Amino acid sequence: MDRQLELSNIRHVLIRLEETIIFGLIERAQFAQNLVIYQKGGVGDELPHESLMDFMLHETEKTHALVRRYTSPDEHPFFDDLPAPILPALDFSTTPLHPNAININRRIRRLYEQELIPKLCRPGDDRQYGSSAVNDVILLQSLSKRIHYGKFVAESKFRGGREPFDALIRARDEVGIMRAITNAEVERDVLDRVHLKATTYGRELDRNSEGFKVDPDLVRNIYAQWVIPLNKEVQVAYLLQRLISDASP
Amino acid sequence: MDRQLELSNIRHVLIRLEETIIFGLIERAQFAQNLVIYQKGGVGDELPHESLMDFMLHETEKTHALVRRYTSPDEHPFFDDLPAPILPALDFSTTPLHPNAININRRIRRLYEQELIPKLCRPGDDRQYGSSAVNDVILLQSLSKRIHYGKFVAESKFRGGREPFDALIRARDEVGIMRAITNAEVERDVLDRVHLKATTYGRELDRNSEGFKVDPDLVRNIYAQWVIPLNKEVQVAYLLQRLISDASP
Repeated sequence: MDRQLELSNIRHVLIRLEETIIFGLIERAQFAQNLVIYQKGGVGDELPHESLMDFMLHETEKTHALVRRYTSPDEHPFFDDLPAPILPALDFSTTPLHPNAININRRIRRLYEQELIPKLCRPGDDRQYGSSAVNDVILLQSLSKRIHYGKFVAESKFRGGREPFDALIRARDEVGIMRAITNAEVERDVLDRVHLKATTYGRELDRNSEGFKVDPDLVRNIYAQWVIPLNKEVQVAYLLQRLISDASP
Repeated sequence: MDRQLELSNIRHVLIRLEETIIFGLIERAQFAQNLVIYQKGGVGDELPHESLMDFMLHETEKTHALVRRYTSPDEHPFFDDLPAPILPALDFSTTPLHPNAININRRIRRLYEQELIPKLCRPGDDRQYGSSAVNDVILLQSLSKRIHYGKFVAESKFRGGREPFDALIRARDEVGIMRAITNAEVERDVLDRVHLKATTYGRELDRNSEGFKVDPDLVRNIYAQWVIPLNKEVQVAYLLQRLISDASP
């Protein structure tokens, strides 16, 4: 099997992304909610039709597109009007994924701005708009990567045993597919590990402070309520179209 | 005294930046050195006269300049041809700093690329150029902020007691100024805390791994060899010009 699809490699990527996401949560939680940065026209006449977040995310994606970030099958942009890369393309002809156009970033962003930020950050406005938006971009990108990695997970499970999947996919049995990809024990392990990491990384280590920079239970809940379920939704969506014009092995 | 100059507030900012820098080191250390991204023309004909790092840092700074990052007295750009902000300026007329143009980012970047990266990352090339450069930008920006924060430290010390400084500055006694701003006990505390944080945040928490993502001794050395000495150099440079056309209190 393709190295990228070996479960041990997928597992390694997902575990490593936990650090990136938890560091990102801790960094963003330094600043107040600053909800004005998510409102179109919120920061003034200079950006009348977009939010500061729109602007920062779009500009960042334009730069990253130029250095071919979105030619990689594990990266998904939030905008669809990005420039072509100026770097010569890496060879992704060997991508192990079935051709697909699944991208749930619009939903990830809505959940992020409307539900995650109000839980993660203290209410109010500290005028740290630029810093907040810069950290939002980094955190959103890592959440998007973690969630869309469901494609690799699903492809790996599919190739590991087509037996249950072929019939479920042909019957378009979403509930059955969801059940087939679900492993409650693995999910519990992820949540326990994420909680342990958040407890470790988020602890105040200055002798004049105590407590946590971000509540470890909140980090666990972010995984339990959003990251894992959305990852599984990507897996189901990916498998539902896995048999269409199937040219891969 | 201006709130931004109270030692407790400066201390809080510097301690909080330790997390940002350590997280940044851990993130960058995922990838190989990829030294080609620091070479002009290294990534191909599309960027014939600049390195990938030049390009990413420049594009990022252009975006951040538009949202007024560099109007803040604690932020210093690596490039000097950045666009004017599109956001209305925050009122920094109350900046507590003496007017100055000190910016040692050119040196920080040279040390970063030539000395820090070869120690931080495993040798070789893993083709993760975009990811490496994105993480380089974040890490360089946090190192620059930490080092240039010496301006606030110096201003606070100066206002806390001009007695030793006035004469030393008039005599342009750099060695004497360096001695006056140095507190070996505080430095040892910083190094101990940074080592503890690196030990905690860098520990592998997956039961299948052990050891550290980044050697805590290396993190300590980065502070001991570069961060603290360069911060003190900024303090000395700042104080040397502190009396010139002194219009502030």
